[in-house]
Amino acid sequence: MNYGIIRYVLARVIQIVGAMMVAPFAVSFIYGEKEGIYYLACAAGALLTGGALAVKKPEKKDFYAKEGFVVTAASWILLSVIGALPLYFSGEMASFTDALFETVSGFTTTGASVVPAVEDLSRSANFWRCFIQLIGGMGVLVFLLAMLPMTGGQDIYIMKAESPGPDVGKLVPRVRRTAYYLYAIYFLLTTVLFFALLIAGMPLYDAICTAFTTTSTGGFGIKNDSLGGYAPEVQYVVAGFLFLAGINYNFYFYIFRKRIKDAFSSEEVRLYAFIFFASVFFIAIVLINGKVCGTEPAFRHAFFQVGSIMTTAGFSSIDYNDWPAAAREVIIFLMLLGGCAGSTSGGIKVSRLIIYVKILGRELMELCHPRAVKTIRMDGARVNNEVVKSAVSFIIAYAFIFVISVLLVSMDGKDFTTNFTAVASGLGNIGPGFSLVGPAENFAHFSMLSKYVIMFDMIAGRLEIFPLLVLLAPATWRRK
Amino acid sequence: MNYGIIRYVLARVIQIVGAMMVAPFAVSFIYGEKEGIYYLACAAGALLTGGALAVKKPEKKDFYAKEGFVVTAASWILLSVIGALPLYFSGEMASFTDALFETVSGFTTTGASVVPAVEDLSRSANFWRCFIQLIGGMGVLVFLLAMLPMTGGQDIYIMKAESPGPDVGKLVPRVRRTAYYLYAIYFLLTTVLFFALLIAGMPLYDAICTAFTTTSTGGFGIKNDSLGGYAPEVQYVVAGFLFLAGINYNFYFYIFRKRIKDAFSSEEVRLYAFIFFASVFFIAIVLINGKVCGTEPAFRHAFFQVGSIMTTAGFSSIDYNDWPAAAREVIIFLMLLGGCAGSTSGGIKVSRLIIYVKILGRELMELCHPRAVKTIRMDGARVNNEVVKSAVSFIIAYAFIFVISVLLVSMDGKDFTTNFTAVASGLGNIGPGFSLVGPAENFAHFSMLSKYVIMFDMIAGRLEIFPLLVLLAPATWRRK
Repeated sequence: MNYGIIRYVLARVIQIVGAMMVAPFAVSFIYGEKEGIYYLACAAGALLTGGALAVKKPEKKDFYAKEGFVVTAASWILLSVIGALPLYFSGEMASFTDALFETVSGFTTTGASVVPAVEDLSRSANFWRCFIQLIGGMGVLVFLLAMLPMTGGQDIYIMKAESPGPDVGKLVPRVRRTAYYLYAIYFLLTTVLFFALLIAGMPLYDAICTAFTTTSTGGFGIKNDSLGGYAPEVQYVVAGFLFLAGINYNFYFYIFRKRIKDAFSSEEVRLYAFIFFASVFFIAIVLINGKVCGTEPAFRHAFFQVGSIMTTAGFSSIDYNDWPAAAREVIIFLMLLGGCAGSTSGGIKVSRLIIYVKILGRELMELCHPRAVKTIRMDGARVNNEVVKSAVSFIIAYAFIFVISVLLVSMDGKDFTTNFTAVASGLGNIGPGFSLVGPAENFAHFSMLSKYVIMFDMIAGRLEIFPLLVLLAPATWRRK
Repeated sequence: MNYGIIRYVLARVIQIVGAMMVAPFAVSFIYGEKEGIYYLACAAGALLTGGALAVKKPEKKDFYAKEGFVVTAASWILLSVIGALPLYFSGEMASFTDALFETVSGFTTTGASVVPAVEDLSRSANFWRCFIQLIGGMGVLVFLLAMLPMTGGQDIYIMKAESPGPDVGKLVPRVRRTAYYLYAIYFLLTTVLFFALLIAGMPLYDAICTAFTTTSTGGFGIKNDSLGGYAPEVQYVVAGFLFLAGINYNFYFYIFRKRIKDAFSSEEVRLYAFIFFASVFFIAIVLINGKVCGTEPAFRHAFFQVGSIMTTAGFSSIDYNDWPAAAREVIIFLMLLGGCAGSTSGGIKVSRLIIYVKILGRELMELCHPRAVKTIRMDGARVNNEVVKSAVSFIIAYAFIFVISVLLVSMDGKDFTTNFTAVASGLGNIGPGFSLVGPAENFAHFSMLSKYVIMFDMIAGRLEIFPLLVLLAPATWRRK
């Protein structure tokens, strides 16, 4: 293990969090809130500490997959702890555990909250909650890679560990340039959304916060009823941008490069769009048949909630906990699935679904024709065997963490739907679930143990499990 | 596709069902019930039809995996339909769908019932329900193989398709001999249990029926409260034999061959026993802490219900739907897991769990040490790559069928726990679930669509999915 380089990267991460905290301080300054001082103090502390730790450059350059996983997992734990400090010191959260839960939920773009009424929070706190979702959405380390040049092939291992999806496609040969493009697309989407929200009639502060939490598919609300109280126009705009946010960013890259045919021929994007709109249509029909609401609201809420849940944002335009069973259960499975790889959404991802379907197809074909050898292809190209193996390992690890988490959370004595969807929501980085964690509820009622279990799930889900497992595996730390 | 041999095997299957129906006729004769006539009539019809279809011997001998899967899936559908006829004609079931549901549930050893009060059924009907569980437990085609010699390597494909587990280990080189040994162990266990039940104070008829449904891990009760009304001694005996029934039959074979060390060194049997008793202990503690019952009943009900659910029998000694959440959720995950491969239990199976854990371990090892190549080993031997692939395909197929089934069943508008556990119960061949399909409830309230979905799940679960998928795959029927 190259401890020098790990220390160096972590020092930079501390500095980034410190620099980020200047923004909520500025917000508090504008609105004349006293909470800003805590952000300023923590920013100074983080910048100094990070600076001190980064003085000594790492001696050795060797940096492999193991180091990439370890540094990524450690970074995410570290930035959550540091990010929680101002929320805790300002006294706005009930305990350090709650402050940490809110911060983990923010950075991982989960959006699950332990705050019973977010409207009681200061504007700086709400801005901070939304801002960490913006940065967490595309990745703190990817941000670091875009800013900080690293020599050798080190950066690819960090990129692989932090970026979602079974296969990390570099858009361009150089990792730093890829990170730069990703962030450019991301900020462009966010900016366009910001203006669209203003045009749809949202106040400035709300538009900034909502833009941050939409393209990041974060889902923190700054209103107690999430987006339920805004005009239908706002809900349509958010739903539309959620759909866009769940698409693989390769799609936008191709569009900018004018490779329109490549963009639209992606099997993942096509299946994503199909599942998305089929679910919208199905749920709308169920809502209309069940006389839950009229035709326009039915389509709007269906569009909004499918957008919110499938991209794993987690906003709500309505309390879908009261919906008919068939609509609710579609929502639960969208929670598990998530959006495209290479987007800001969480969950299992559509590209893995495709791989699983093709594994199944291959097995059936080989059972019927034992001598036939089939390879798995996607978008015309052969899928690397390592990618197939890692997609399989992912779903196994996902299932294990799911089961163990539900068992631990069930110690609180809550009902199965609550436990199941709370864990699905944490692992999938969604936010709300059903029953006691429905859109009108929050996560404050869980025990401390359950909160830490769900925090683990949120980070595991955001980093797609393996970085955390590698960090925790004894084999990683064993000396040869 | 070799249609001749498929016709021939199906004809034999029809004859077996016909021959089986003589037993409930005998029961009706003893107890002077008028329903017996329907069993006699159906028996005659089946024996004649089967005999007529089997007159012409198949011309070609070629019989491969595809034919094995198709004939197995078709057999199970056929024997369910024929087995349902006397229940339907006698007027004891509300509809043909209900009669078919009860028969599928019987043959697949699920034990889910659509009969609100089984004590109202005739003794012949209850005997038939239990008897089809006995035959379905070890497998109708395995029974056929033990009786009917087939030339060439045909029988191994049938054995593979019908026997549970990722890898079908032949006990002895010849398939027919293996089938014979399996049935010998099975009938020996059933006979010992029968006498133990008599000694524990059960009436003769009850002891026969309960012996049939215990070693087959079927779980049909002949009392409205399943085994709740019997003496604690009876419950202990049943729980003990359920534990034995969930063990891989290789274990007993080794014991008989005096290879004691081989028997007890099986990783699967050891993990099965560990999970079994850890769950018993955990649930007992939860029950005692939750003041659900005293120490002895807590351990007894924990032992009984873990035995009943993990081996996928589905009896109940108590309405566990009222238990504390932590105990209930352990039960739900035992429903998914099931017992050992090569036993009469359903579910995903402990040996697959081991393979999944080892796949995960291999992935972690390869992530940390990219140049290391690890093979998956079980009981000291390398696990064939085909077996690993098929275990992976199995869990993917299981998940897909699970999700689609829950979505279809949710159309009935019932709660998530009901839908989730009804499907888990069907696919795992268990019987009861939670909420509206809890131990004190039944499956009668489902719509016709849901009943057929759950029937599909029961057969898919019993045959471990692929035979049904091969039967339904267009590729199977495409001419080259």
